[in-house]
Amino acid sequence: MFLKNIWYVAGWTTEFDAGDLAGRMIAGEPVVFFRKQDGTLNALPDRCPHRWAPLSKGRLEGDDLRCMYHGVKFDADGNCVEVPAQEKVSPQLCLQPYPVAEKHQWAWIWMGDPAMADPSTIPDCSYMDAPARRFKTGQLDYKAHHALVSDNLLDLSHVAFLHEKTLAAPPEGEPEDKKTGQSVGGAAGTRIETGVRYENWRVGDFGRAVVQAKSGGTGDVWSRLDYVVPGIFISRVATYPAGTAEKCDFGTPPADVEPLSDNISCQAVTPMTERTTRYFFSSGPRKADVTDEEADGMWKVASAAFDEDLDMIEAQQKIIDNHPANRMAWIDADKGPAMFRQLMAELMRKEGTPVEAFPPNRSASDTVARPDVVEAAE
Amino acid sequence: MFLKNIWYVAGWTTEFDAGDLAGRMIAGEPVVFFRKQDGTLNALPDRCPHRWAPLSKGRLEGDDLRCMYHGVKFDADGNCVEVPAQEKVSPQLCLQPYPVAEKHQWAWIWMGDPAMADPSTIPDCSYMDAPARRFKTGQLDYKAHHALVSDNLLDLSHVAFLHEKTLAAPPEGEPEDKKTGQSVGGAAGTRIETGVRYENWRVGDFGRAVVQAKSGGTGDVWSRLDYVVPGIFISRVATYPAGTAEKCDFGTPPADVEPLSDNISCQAVTPMTERTTRYFFSSGPRKADVTDEEADGMWKVASAAFDEDLDMIEAQQKIIDNHPANRMAWIDADKGPAMFRQLMAELMRKEGTPVEAFPPNRSASDTVARPDVVEAAE
Amino acid sequence: MFLKNIWYVAGWTTEFDAGDLAGRMIAGEPVVFFRKQDGTLNALPDRCPHRWAPLSKGRLEGDDLRCMYHGVKFDADGNCVEVPAQEKVSPQLCLQPYPVAEKHQWAWIWMGDPAMADPSTIPDCSYMDAPARRFKTGQLDYKAHHALVSDNLLDLSHVAFLHEKTLAAPPEGEPEDKKTGQSVGGAAGTRIETGVRYENWRVGDFGRAVVQAKSGGTGDVWSRLDYVVPGIFISRVATYPAGTAEKCDFGTPPADVEPLSDNISCQAVTPMTERTTRYFFSSGPRKADVTDEEADGMWKVASAAFDEDLDMIEAQQKIIDNHPANRMAWIDADKGPAMFRQLMAELMRKEGTPVEAFPPNRSASDTVARPDVVEAAE
Ligand code: FES
Ligand code: FES
Ligand code: FES
Repeated sequence: MFLKNIWYVAGWTTEFDAGDLAGRMIAGEPVVFFRKQDGTLNALPDRCPHRWAPLSKGRLEGDDLRCMYHGVKFDADGNCVEVPAQEKVSPQLCLQPYPVAEKHQWAWIWMGDPAMADPSTIPDCSYMDAPARRFKTGQLDYKAHHALVSDNLLDLSHVAFLHEKTLAAPPEGEPEDKKTGQSVGGAAGTRIETGVRYENWRVGDFGRAVVQAKSGGTGDVWSRLDYVVPGIFISRVATYPAGTAEKCDFGTPPADVEPLSDNISCQAVTPMTERTTRYFFSSGPRKADVTDEEADGMWKVASAAFDEDLDMIEAQQKIIDNHPANRMAWIDADKGPAMFRQLMAELMRKEGTPVEAFPPNRSASDTVARPDVVEAAE
Repeated sequence: MFLKNIWYVAGWTTEFDAGDLAGRMIAGEPVVFFRKQDGTLNALPDRCPHRWAPLSKGRLEGDDLRCMYHGVKFDADGNCVEVPAQEKVSPQLCLQPYPVAEKHQWAWIWMGDPAMADPSTIPDCSYMDAPARRFKTGQLDYKAHHALVSDNLLDLSHVAFLHEKTLAAPPEGEPEDKKTGQSVGGAAGTRIETGVRYENWRVGDFGRAVVQAKSGGTGDVWSRLDYVVPGIFISRVATYPAGTAEKCDFGTPPADVEPLSDNISCQAVTPMTERTTRYFFSSGPRKADVTDEEADGMWKVASAAFDEDLDMIEAQQKIIDNHPANRMAWIDADKGPAMFRQLMAELMRKEGTPVEAFPPNRSASDTVARPDVVEAAE
Repeated sequence: MFLKNIWYVAGWTTEFDAGDLAGRMIAGEPVVFFRKQDGTLNALPDRCPHRWAPLSKGRLEGDDLRCMYHGVKFDADGNCVEVPAQEKVSPQLCLQPYPVAEKHQWAWIWMGDPAMADPSTIPDCSYMDAPARRFKTGQLDYKAHHALVSDNLLDLSHVAFLHEKTLAAPPEGEPEDKKTGQSVGGAAGTRIETGVRYENWRVGDFGRAVVQAKSGGTGDVWSRLDYVVPGIFISRVATYPAGTAEKCDFGTPPADVEPLSDNISCQAVTPMTERTTRYFFSSGPRKADVTDEEADGMWKVASAAFDEDLDMIEAQQKIIDNHPANRMAWIDADKGPAMFRQLMAELMRKEGTPVEAFPPNRSASDTVARPDVVEAAE
């Protein structure tokens, strides 16, 4: 069971070409996407109401979509406009269209009540629209429940361990066994309206960020990471001249100071089924900060790290599925993931979706969420 | 659950060689076929009563079959005739043989009460025995419930859509978007005793039949298609001199008029399990009508069309299995398939097989059958 | 459900290298094995108590094991010794270590109550430690319940049939259809404390043992095969000078008579899951009896036979899983397997493990065990 009244990322806008019928699985529902002749993206259930053939195997006829099993035809709003060799058309033969929107490089879809779909509630991923970036995108399919993928992104304390050989690789000559910066770890999360925020300044010897200042580490690094429902990761990491953090009292960096380097990443976690999840990711360092070759190198490292996540999380899912339910044990770093799970549960409860189905474990008691700890933290 | 008291096609008679043990899955039961020394085909459960090893991994010893796990031996009637190093043989150690028959190129098996097995009730597929035909046969395994494959064959209105690029491919220069002949579509079905019949004359510009008259389309095309339980398709398409249809008052063509061309096809749909189905098909144009090369060409087109069916129906099955049960919507073309489903349901009810298990959907209410419409049509 | 308070073979001692983390599935539980710095083998659940990541993807740090998802660290006894960036460590964050022992070339693990783990109850497989043998080992993974593999080893009457072309292959020129020696067949089993014993002398024309006397068959062949819980096969086959059997009154061969040939085999059947089983096997003819080439040849034949077992048993498992439960039929050769199943059931009952889960069939009534016959035999 999935949260329905929410915008999900269905794909990159560039995935949906004119003339194509693109079948996707979103939150347990098969959906077919196509562009109308005016270029607008349209989405209908990918399941003909007649005998449940996939409409993505159908034929686009102008703005209409014909099922190519027995030829029943629908308009872009899902109304049946033709049944071959039949005069009257039954009102049962219709499809409920899904609200869609294209915004910030992504195609978004609303899986719940169309009347509630308001594109202004789409999370602000405008970082991806910024010019003068060396923008790269990718995606991966997980054989795991989306909550496990979200947990991962909500607690970056895992970087020092899972990604010790990629993102956290120490420079030559440095000792391996060093302390982890917990700055963006799950313990540092604070609730914002639609998710969890991680915000901090690392000053001085700030460890190794994915993007290091060209100046060689002599600056203050500011990072903000928002993770918002249903699974949108929006982050910026910027290096400022040394002293900036103190000058702005360790708050949001002042708008009039130019960062020495600046990198952004938006990512999205979209459930396909209860055990498959599509993960979209991007990176955008400023053109001024890195060469194309450097951006390629960073991207290779990030991609290798995403493969490490995939490998670990799919293994974790297998153990969860093979093991009788019981409670997972709590550590401080679970605070961020738990706040997010709690928020998701609230939203699901509000729309009547059973909450016990949310954690990828076998029973409701099987969750990491510790309301006492979470509440105390708020 | 499958209809039991009925003849199923187990395979082509040529599949069963002397000396071979052929394991097959028929209507949910593993069956082992072998020929006795006199050539008679014999069928026993492919499951040793001792420890359930497959007898198809056994050894034929004359007309006896020895299980090659622990060596228990059975005669062709399923009686245990030897337990190694044991004097008495328990009566539990026996197998109930299946009635089999070889008729019209096919090996048939009766899965129900042997006392009711009457070979004279095997559908008349004698078309396949006719001499002077360029006879071709093939088979395909579906990952789908047999009812979906039967639905497909009971409503050929799908040909114009699903097979638009193969069977329905328009000749060069003709417009693509033309009306479909509904003549053999599901809406035209009428009940016959053991199935549904589609019969019609197409006069004048009769569209594109799989076999077109050598005379170039100047004739009247008569076709009759019977689809009988549990899934036997028997069809003939013949072209007669223009005017023949009117002369015989659009009834059965007169026996004394030689058709200009004449093609037959027998096909069979045999459930293996609830989600696997074996599909046997054949084609037999008259030798006089087509050359070997032409027959090969027609066969290639038909085979490509069967692959299109397979692709669509397996996709349909996946959607059915992944989607919560609810009613499919009705179109007129469903009349034929619905009449057949209703007949199957009646036969299953009569022998005590649960009918709700028949449609490949998740609940009894999930079926296309509309008794009101069907009854009105009868 | 598996018997817990018993020693299972986890692998060959040589499988576990210093510095390695070896993940194994034993009796339904994921286990990680590693050697401490002093070389001692250690076993912990392969499931981090935090978020259930596999510890076999972790990092060995001295004798400690760090989970490489979020970095929680455990000592070899399973105590949590570090949570990154957290001061207090919750007592929930601990792992219950498994008792392990290395004995007779095998690593053994105790899956039940550690307080009951007594290495002196490990079955005596010291045959494998004997010097001057051409010792060979192998292993195979079955897609079948372990009980089916045990059944197979508890009734060697199957050798004459399943292995007619390998182990039982008749020499050139001999008739194929000869009587089977039932000497080690299931009918000959007698209960010993922890299992079933098969013991016999074959005198004169003793058929074909895997190892035949170099003297060409002029001796008496003595064999003893013990099959003990949870699935340990310990066998010795030795040829003595003709007359030895009579001299010792068909009892245990006298210690002061040197056998002409002597071969031993220890094998172990370890459940991984309810439908996967690991099978370990070995062979050790005396160096004096066979050359390396002869030992290789014998091993090839035995390996081919083990593949025949695998093929048959996996086929049997499929039929069992696809077929509605009902009783299997009894033959005399089932006596040995039934005695062993009965013993396993007793042990499971004693520790509170549901017995109906033991047979690989769908219900408790679906077992071959015939208490009347078994009891009468005791
Ligand atoms: S399934 Fe779409 S028209 Fe029949
Ligand atoms: S299973 Fe057939 S003889 Fe044992
Ligand atoms: S799962 Fe092992 S430390 Fe988190």
